[in-house]
Parts: sequence; structure tokens; C-alpha cells
Amino acid sequence: MCLRKGDESLPQVVHFPDVERVEWLNKTVNQMWPYICQFVEKLFHETIEPAVKESNAHLSTFCFSKIHLGDKPLRVNGVKVYTENVDQRQIIMDLQISFVGNTEIDVDIKRYYCKAGIKSIQIHGVLRVVMEPLLGDMPLIGALSVFFLKKPLVDINWTGLSNILDIPGLKGFSDNLIQDIIYSYLVLPNRITIPLVGDVELAKLRFPMPKGVLRIHFLEAQDLEGKDTFFGGLIKGKSDPYGVLQIGNQLFQSKAVKESLNPKWNEVYEALVYEHSGQHLEIELFDEDPDKDDFLGSLMIDMTELHKEQKVDEWFDLEEAPTGKLHLKLEWLSLLATPEKLDKVLRSVRADRSLANDGLSSALLVVYLDSAKNLPSVFSGSLGCGNLSERRASGLVFCESNTSEYRTIFSAKKSSSEPSPFVQFTVGHKTLESKIRYKTKEPLWEDCFSFFVHNPKRQELELEVKDDKHKCTLGNLTVPLSSLLTEENMTLTQSFPLKNSGPSSTIKLRMALRLCQSFGCVVIVVVVVLWHGVAEVPRWQPLNDSLP
Amino acid sequence: MCLRKGDESLPQVVHFPDVERVEWLNKTVNQMWPYICQFVEKLFHETIEPAVKESNAHLSTFCFSKIHLGDKPLRVNGVKVYTENVDQRQIIMDLQISFVGNTEIDVDIKRYYCKAGIKSIQIHGVLRVVMEPLLGDMPLIGALSVFFLKKPLVDINWTGLSNILDIPGLKGFSDNLIQDIIYSYLVLPNRITIPLVGDVELAKLRFPMPKGVLRIHFLEAQDLEGKDTFFGGLIKGKSDPYGVLQIGNQLFQSKAVKESLNPKWNEVYEALVYEHSGQHLEIELFDEDPDKDDFLGSLMIDMTELHKEQKVDEWFDLEEAPTGKLHLKLEWLSLLATPEKLDKVLRSVRADRSLANDGLSSALLVVYLDSAKNLPSVFSGSLGCGNLSERRASGLVFCESNTSEYRTIFSAKKSSSEPSPFVQFTVGHKTLESKIRYKTKEPLWEDCFSFFVHNPKRQELELEVKDDKHKCTLGNLTVPLSSLLTEENMTLTQSFPLKNSGPSSTIKLRMALRLCQSFGCVVIVVVVVLWHGVAEVPRWQPLNDSLP
Repeated sequence: MCLRKGDESLPQVVHFPDVERVEWLNKTVNQMWPYICQFVEKLFHETIEPAVKESNAHLSTFCFSKIHLGDKPLRVNGVKVYTENVDQRQIIMDLQISFVGNTEIDVDIKRYYCKAGIKSIQIHGVLRVVMEPLLGDMPLIGALSVFFLKKPLVDINWTGLSNILDIPGLKGFSDNLIQDIIYSYLVLPNRITIPLVGDVELAKLRFPMPKGVLRIHFLEAQDLEGKDTFFGGLIKGKSDPYGVLQIGNQLFQSKAVKESLNPKWNEVYEALVYEHSGQHLEIELFDEDPDKDDFLGSLMIDMTELHKEQKVDEWFDLEEAPTGKLHLKLEWLSLLATPEKLDKVLRSVRADRSLANDGLSSALLVVYLDSAKNLPSVFSGSLGCGNLSERRASGLVFCESNTSEYRTIFSAKKSSSEPSPFVQFTVGHKTLESKIRYKTKEPLWEDCFSFFVHNPKRQELELEVKDDKHKCTLGNLTVPLSSLLTEENMTLTQSFPLKNSGPSSTIKLRMALRLCQSFGCVVIVVVVVLWHGVAEVPRWQPLNDSLP
Repeated sequence: MCLRKGDESLPQVVHFPDVERVEWLNKTVNQMWPYICQFVEKLFHETIEPAVKESNAHLSTFCFSKIHLGDKPLRVNGVKVYTENVDQRQIIMDLQISFVGNTEIDVDIKRYYCKAGIKSIQIHGVLRVVMEPLLGDMPLIGALSVFFLKKPLVDINWTGLSNILDIPGLKGFSDNLIQDIIYSYLVLPNRITIPLVGDVELAKLRFPMPKGVLRIHFLEAQDLEGKDTFFGGLIKGKSDPYGVLQIGNQLFQSKAVKESLNPKWNEVYEALVYEHSGQHLEIELFDEDPDKDDFLGSLMIDMTELHKEQKVDEWFDLEEAPTGKLHLKLEWLSLLATPEKLDKVLRSVRADRSLANDGLSSALLVVYLDSAKNLPSVFSGSLGCGNLSERRASGLVFCESNTSEYRTIFSAKKSSSEPSPFVQFTVGHKTLESKIRYKTKEPLWEDCFSFFVHNPKRQELELEVKDDKHKCTLGNLTVPLSSLLTEENMTLTQSFPLKNSGPSSTIKLRMALRLCQSFGCVVIVVVVVLWHGVAEVPRWQPLNDSLP
């Protein structure tokens, strides 16, 4: 079995044997470049600029004084079209792209006399294009989805970055901010979906159900390189090794084992896999040091191969290192909407003898947050609004504002009592937050959130709608996950009335629960089926399964 | 100058130096093939079948009993993207395609117990894809147009073809019928246009104004091969040479010069050129014989090069022949909407000393036929309907039916008096006919017709709307072309009232006149401009010029 991927000399670049050069496609991109620039520049002015202005009172005078994407077009260095593991209603292709642009973007924050900007940008990565659904009518393709399989290499040449950092309230701003924005729009599971026909179900295409879950038992290593040297490098000693694991935009870091060349970590991570092909698990080992951590080797595992094998327990030779082996156990978990198998899955999770088995998941919960209606207005602390029930009846929420800054803004815009709502979801110890929608009682989010679930019979989804400015609640909701077990396809779409909110405040959600079933577990099922003499073919993952 | 194109060993195949192999594109086509089949099969059932049924009373029981495009997908053997001579709002690419399909299409005409069909189809050709307009917004491309630059090679394997030929009224049916249908939809100037956004001006994209006119002086040849042999081939004699000239779907054939190896034809042809690049003038010389004409050589002229040179007067060595030269004079005529230059163009046409100069054109008329409204009903001869003015007032047209067949149908469907209108256009000696629209008073044609005009000051467009079944008139109209000279951009769009028709019958047309100006003529203009010291840059052809 060959799970590993990559060339020794260029281990960070993924090489495809079936990749073709496409100069004609580059000619097409060159021709389209002015229009691509026009689109991106409009996006900055009409979408990003207002969002930045709204996001922080210090940035209300923010504007882009110059946006010039540059005259050097994006290049496509190769194209690969997938023919295996592809739903017959879709086309999947990967474009190796590189953009070395003389991009100039200048921002101006007048209130702080701050000017800063970008002088050039480089982006290198593999962009996946999914054409789906295919149609028996022109234009034959319903929509295009575009995303990076993993974080692309982004290099930005800033000017005047320190000017921005001097602005109060922007301490958190950093070089990584722009990268994070790119990642949050363009790296799997995020994607940009462009409809080509009118009646395509966009939400389904934007938020497909993951294809499966990868359970990684990050066990132990042997014969690692000793990096902590003594006596000026004369005597090589031990290392304090830890691992960094990455798949898509999911990152895991193990604890460091002190002074060992044969560390045992015995940690378990679970990651969502959205695409069968082209995705890789990348592992790097480092020696923890007070100053700069030393590199101890790497490993890249191809998800296509793992998906075929379903389960692997193996010692892997480390790459890019003179010595060292890594012991991993990897399991592909299929996602099933069959509640009758829950007990088997729970037994199988409990039976797992790995040291870290208390954290294993039996199910995945995916929540699609659509919108809320009739959210209550918000009022600041200085205004009396009667007692709680009166306020509820009038659809108002009373917020104690603890920032003098807010009061200033509020007095200036006394008429505006619209909330700026966002949603906080909690399952177990994990909390996720939606984007903020500014000044609206009818926010439309259209976003998706995933949670691993240990036991859906006992756990629940807690949800709170909050106001961004006043940090006060606008309503909440609790849904026991057990209620999903009885729904068709374990999926529930509903406008739920919010508690502690306005009289007719509702939130529209779709929730889907899927059991995480490993190969071994399925084998047992098959045996039972054969015992009863029924020729049932287990279906590993339903095609086109998507949440909304 | 290198106007010629083609490889000696494979002269019929156009070779592109910039063509790239595109296996990844073929993988995409393979994946899309079932959907392409679905689309084509639906097209046959829902569009072609009803049209065939309507077209002829003998075919009223016609149906496709089987349509199976086959499981062998179309292949793209190469792609070329054009970067020169391209409007910056468009992308032009050529796909070398070949389809060797196990296609099975069965037709059944129950009334005549006739079954026939197609067992396989081959199509080889260069398919042009034009993406236009490019947009500064997603999906960046407004529409796709698809067409063959010249007639593709089509080979159809028929079964039971003779059965069809036995049906009365179908004598004209032949092997070429299907080819003609393909040509009339898919070969330049015809095209299939697929919109990708809602607000794109489809008619403009479907019927662009030609890029220019090619005037071909087919003058003389020298040292042709003698093909008419005597004494069993012992003595080679003379030939009776003639030429066949082809560009796009336009075909010209010269007269044959009897018994000459150095014939002088001195003929002039004018052809529309719709694309700057990728189009070729193909000339073949033959020796006219009572049985099978012998081939005497060929020549292929690249329009891209000719467009650069504007004017060429040259002796060309014949290809594929051991001996022979051909003398051609070729002129590129630009199309201008500047009526003040008409007199100069007319003088230049008159000044041409070629023997056949009485046929030269000074202008091009392009007519876009949109629709007609409130056309009169039709009644057969056996029904009296009062006098002519009464019938007009009631919106009826009285038709003398001279076929007994019609009376039968009419008595069977007495309630139906809807006309089946088509339009006949005449300019000078040339007459063109639109497609028939069956049983409607409000026909929508959306079709385009072009005429060369000798002198727009004196000529007129005559138009007659006719009923297909009764061959009687439904109305007519005469427009003097001089009226277009005073219109803005020499273009007139109007709903014209029809004469000899119903009281409110109208026909909606757009007519555009363009002067055909040769390079020599422009040079004179430039000299005059320089004399006056004005830096006017003559614009050979306006970008995006289109009729509707």
C-alpha cells in the first residue's frame, strides 16, 4: 500500500502524475484578467469596505484609496480532472495556480491619519473547481464551486503596517488577518459557489455534507533525530518532540514529550474530510525549544488511498529527516443516517482500547444557520424601559452598556435601536460563533457549523443569539440531539421560537446528525446480514448528501 | 508574405502550430457525456419531431422510435486560443473535434409503414467557441457561442433510406438532408448561443455583423495538368478547367474554360467573412469531364494574413498538383456606417478595370427579421368571403387552393384558419426565404439575411409574407435602401405596417446598411485627411458591430 505522497526534494508541493500543462487556459485567463480585476476591485469597494467600516467604531473612516490588482495575471500551471470517486453528477478538477502580482492596495483611515497598504501579493496553491450538478439541458452545468483544498501559500508585502497597529482597538490586527480572510472564504470547507442557472439549490452546493471523518491515532515515534545539542554541538542529546497535523483548514498539535527520541503521545484527533480525492493529511514533527523549534521530519498521507483501505495501523518512515519512524493508526469513518446503528457505533467507540478513547465521537452534528426573524430591538442602559415582561411584550431587549464609547455612538444615532446579531452554538465543550449581521432584526446568515458528538442520546445543542455591540442576549434555544434520531434522514429543518426574546422571534435552522461508522463496525453488520441471508449492500456514503 | 496554409501530405486538415492536446478536457467531456446525450435526445423529441410532423402532411405520423447518441463521447483533439485580432470583450478558441459515434436513431412513419434509421455517425471539424461578452461580475462570461468555421466532415451510416424515399412528397429527401440541417444550425454564419447570465443581448450575439467582405477576382491559371488523354492515355491533351471556391458555408463555382491549360476566367465573387482568424478561402481546380471531373490542384488562403495585407494580386503555385499556377486578386473590404463615403465607394467600384466590374458591390444590407403581428387568417377557395376590401377589414386572406389535398385537410380541420407564414426577401436578383412558422398569426422568426447591394441609392428591399400551405400572400412591404443612408449608424429598427394584409398587420425588422470600402479607397481618404492636417485614425471595422 502506498499512502504517502510527495517527492523527497520538494515535499511541500503536491505532484500529480496526470497533470497537464494548459497554456491555452492561461491565454484565456490573460484575456479575462481585466474583468477578473474589475470583479475583485468591486468586491473590495462594495462588500469588504462597508464590512470593515461597520465592524469597529475605530474603523468608521476606513476606505480603500487604491485597489489595483496589477497587470500580471494569475497563472494555471497544471490541470487534473478526477475520474475516480466522483459522483456522476459532478466534474472535479484541480488547478495548480500561482499568482505573483504587482498588486497595490492602499487603505486610508482618516480619523487616525493612517495610511497603509500592500505593494505585492503572492499566492500559490491547488484550487479545486467542482462543476455540479450536471444538467441534461444547456448550459449543462448548474453551478461552479471554487476552493483551495488546503491553505495556499500567501505572501503579502505590506507598507505602513505599523501605522495600523497603532490604532486603538486594532491590537489584534496582524499580517495574518488578510490570510485568515482568504482562508475563511476560500479554503475547504469554505467555498465560493457561482450559479450558472436560475433554479440551482445554492445552499446545498455551498455546504455539502462531509464525505467522511478521519480518526487519527497519533501514537508514537522511534529513532528521532536528537536536536538539543550540548557543549557547542559536540554532544547530541535528546529532543522534546511534538507533532503538527493538518488536513484542509483543520490543525491539530500534540503535547511535547520531554527529552525523548522515542516519544509516546497516544493522542486521538478527529477531522472532517470533504473531498475524497486530492486531500492530504500532512504531519510535521518538531523539537520544542525555548527559542526556535527544530524540524524533525514530515509525512503526507493521501486520503484517496486511505479511503480505499478504510483502516491503517502502520509505522511510517519520516521524510526530510535522516532518521525516524512514526506510528499512526488511521480510520476512515463513514457518515450514516441510520439511527438503528447508533448502539453498535457506541459499543464500538467504547470498545476502542486506545488510551484516549474517552474523546472518541459516535456522531457528527451539522447545523445550517439560515436566518432569524423579528429579533427584539436593543436599548442602552441609560434608558428605562419598564419591567422585563413589558419589554418582552414590546419586543425590546434592555442591555447594560459598559463602554462609554457605545453611549456616544448611541446618543449620536438615537433613532437606531436595531440589533447587530450573531449566534453562538455550543455542543459539549465546543463553542462556535457565526458572523455578525449589522443593524438588522431579520439577519440572514446562510452559514454552516459542525460538531463532533460523543453520545447523541445525552447531548444537546445550545444556541444563543447575541447582540455584538452590547454583548447582551437576544434569545436562546436548546435542542436535545436525541430528537434528531427519530427524524427522517436524521435531519430537522424548522423555524424555532426563541426563548428570552421578542414575542414572535424565531430562528430558522437545519440540523443533521450522522453516525460515524468505522470499517470494522461495518464488517460486523455485514456478517449479521449474511447470517440472516439478506443480500444488503452497505452503502458507505450517500452521494450528494448535503445539509440544507 | 505567407497566405497559404496546410501541409502537403494532409492538405484537407488544418494544422495549428499553437494547438495543445487536452486530455483533461476529454475527461470532462466523458463525464458530461450522459447529460449531453440527454440534451440532444430531448432536442430531437421536443423540437425536431414536432417540426418534421408539421412540415409535410405525409409526415404527420413521423416519430423517432429510438434516439441513442451512443456511449462513445465526442473527443477534443486540440485546443487553440486566439490572442490576436480579438476584441478585448471576447475570448475565441477553436476545438478540433471528432465524433465517431455508435449513434442509433430510428424513425417511424406509421402511415406508410416506413421504418428507417441511422446506425452510426462520424463528424470531424473545427468547432469555434466564442465567450462574449466578458463581464466584471460572476460568472465573468455573459454567453457562449458555438459554431463550425467551415462545414465539418459528416458521414452517416443509414439503414432503410430507400423506404423513406418511397414516401410520396419526399422525393427531395436525400443523404444530404441531415448534413444540410447540421450546416444550417452550426456552420458560420449560423451558431448556437447559450446565455450564462439573464440580461445578455442574445440576438446581438447570435447575429453579429460580418467582420468584412472578401472580394475574389478569380482571374486565370497557367501550366495546368492536361487530364483529357487520347489513345488510351498515350497522348496527354488539354483540360476543361473550372474552379470551386469555398469560405465558411459560401460556395462559388466558375464557368469551365474549354480545352485550355492556361484558362482565363476573369470572374469576381464577394463573400462575407465573419471571423478574422481561423477562416480560410479554399480553392480547388477541376477538369470538367462527362463522367467524373479530375482534380487539378488546390490552394488555401488564410484570412488572418489577408486581413493584414488588405489587398493581394499574385500568382500562387497550386498545391497537390505537379504543375500549375493560379492568378488571384483578393481584396479585403471593410464595412463602414459612414454614408458620406458612399460616392467615393461608388466611384472606386466603377473605376475597377476588371472585366466583371458590373457586378461589384458598394454596400452590404443585413436584415434581422424579428416577428410579425396580427397576420390575417387564411381561407380556402370553396368558401366565399365577400369582396377584397371586406376581407381585409375582417383580417382574412382569401386563397385559391389548387391542391385537392389541401381541401381534405381543411375540411377535416375546419376551425383552423391560422396561417403558416414565412417571409421572402428580394434585393435585385437575389431572393432569400425565412423558415416557416406553423399555424400562427404572431410568428417569431429571429433570423438574419444578408444582401450585396450595387447602389443603395437606387435599389430597394422587397418583402413578402407568404402562407406556406396555400402559397398565397399575407402582406408585403417595399423599403428603398436610400432611406437607410440618413438613419443613425445607417440602421433602422421598426414595426412596418404590411400592405395587402390585415388592418393592423405589422412586421418588425432591423435593417443595417454598411459600405464596402477597400484598402485603396481608404488610402485616398487618409491622404485627404493628412492634407487637412487632422490626425484622424481610420477605423477598419467597429468592434462589436452587430445587427439587432
